[in-house]
Amino acid sequence: MFTIIGERINTTLKMVQAAVADRDADYIQDDVIQQAEAGATYIDVNAGARIGHETEDMKWLLEVIQKATDLPLCLDSPDPDVLEIAYGLVSQKPLVNSISLEKDRFEPMFAYLQGKECRIIALCMDDSGMPRSVDDIVSRAHRLVGELGRIGFKHEDIFIDPLIQPVGVDTNNCRMAMAAVKAITTELEGVHVTGGLSNISYGLPQRRIVNRTFLSFMMAVGMDSAIMDPLDSALMACVRTSEMLNGNDDYCMNFLKGVRAGTIVS
Amino acid sequence: MFTIIGERINTTLKMVQAAVADRDADYIQDDVIQQAEAGATYIDVNAGARIGHETEDMKWLLEVIQKATDLPLCLDSPDPDVLEIAYGLVSQKPLVNSISLEKDRFEPMFAYLQGKECRIIALCMDDSGMPRSVDDIVSRAHRLVGELGRIGFKHEDIFIDPLIQPVGVDTNNCRMAMAAVKAITTELEGVHVTGGLSNISYGLPQRRIVNRTFLSFMMAVGMDSAIMDPLDSALMACVRTSEMLNGNDDYCMNFLKGVRAGTIVS
Repeated sequence: MFTIIGERINTTLKMVQAAVADRDADYIQDDVIQQAEAGATYIDVNAGARIGHETEDMKWLLEVIQKATDLPLCLDSPDPDVLEIAYGLVSQKPLVNSISLEKDRFEPMFAYLQGKECRIIALCMDDSGMPRSVDDIVSRAHRLVGELGRIGFKHEDIFIDPLIQPVGVDTNNCRMAMAAVKAITTELEGVHVTGGLSNISYGLPQRRIVNRTFLSFMMAVGMDSAIMDPLDSALMACVRTSEMLNGNDDYCMNFLKGVRAGTIVS
Repeated sequence: MFTIIGERINTTLKMVQAAVADRDADYIQDDVIQQAEAGATYIDVNAGARIGHETEDMKWLLEVIQKATDLPLCLDSPDPDVLEIAYGLVSQKPLVNSISLEKDRFEPMFAYLQGKECRIIALCMDDSGMPRSVDDIVSRAHRLVGELGRIGFKHEDIFIDPLIQPVGVDTNNCRMAMAAVKAITTELEGVHVTGGLSNISYGLPQRRIVNRTFLSFMMAVGMDSAIMDPLDSALMACVRTSEMLNGNDDYCMNFLKGVRAGTIVS
């Protein structure tokens, strides 16, 4: 089952930032309800953009969002103090976004995660920078899963983000990500793979078709989650169709449901 | 480089059949020019539908089509006598569609192919019927390539058709085809993989999105050709975008050309 992490509640987006500043609960709840109806598995909540207000904004958002939906939340912050408060306010086991192997990020996040009941997004980034090879990505994934395993995280609670890089910068970047994902899902059974899709199309025109086609490529090799906009109906249609082709849609039920609802069109 | 076998000149299509019966060269030539402009690599020519007229219809089509385009042709007939005459009329090395392991088809086609300068589509079909497993497909591909090798066919002149079966009949059918194509392109270096796409969506609604997404899945594992309609612009956009993601489009030139021409849209 593909895990859709709905990315729309993010204060770096102007409309969301304004709604948060104005404490406009209707705007936020309406957006969240739409994401839920479109098929989101998690609602990502990022309150980081209004400097100095992250804690209070996060608290307000969590309260408002949880009145509108029963979906679990993805707590999106680099700050363990914000995450600690947020953790106390969620009614369902959250996904935490994110840890990496960068020393400044790894150590505080690792300390925070100990004893928590949560799932975690783990970025294949270390202090040497972005991965430059399949082996960079796969070896970082192994280290992340190994470290998280030491504090009780099971494979199925870990979402590896291989860090997508633009195909416009190096035409091998998609093949590199595909080979890495294939290796990760083969060598680390049960580990999930997620990521933002849109980096692949950075610098290119007509980005949505690139993002969508890229998603099919990645799903073909084992990616089973994405941080994405569930209201992008062409992208959602691609997820549903790809799930069916992957053999994860018994009797094509979800595909047929989408066609009947008018969300999957040729 | 992805090989697009344009499937539109086929007398089983009503409009084409009428044009052939009326000897309407303009209709045929206009269609062929459109396929060429859209990016076809080969023009498939099937004159089999008007019983008793295949030889004369094929001869007429080959003459008319070659006045309109320099593209090589795909000679599509089960009848070696028709193919023999057609072979004498083409100005470029043709692709022949097709041989299989069925005894009644294999023996006459094998005799026909000896000494010919052509490429060949080889179907993974034998007298036991459609393949039922990855191993069925892969072992048949090995037998076809082995037999054709005995009469001088190189890997790069062989297009294996794994025979796509509907995902609506068995939800494992796409995964089976993917695993087979991965094995074939790994074990039989240089062999091409082609096929009709639309069987995958047989019995489902909104078939074009299924065919298109399926093409991305198959290209992700090594399929490098399809028998398809080059005038289906969404499908062609998918081919171009998938080629770019596969690392087969230096500087994203073909993708950007498609965007500028208005044929690749999000």
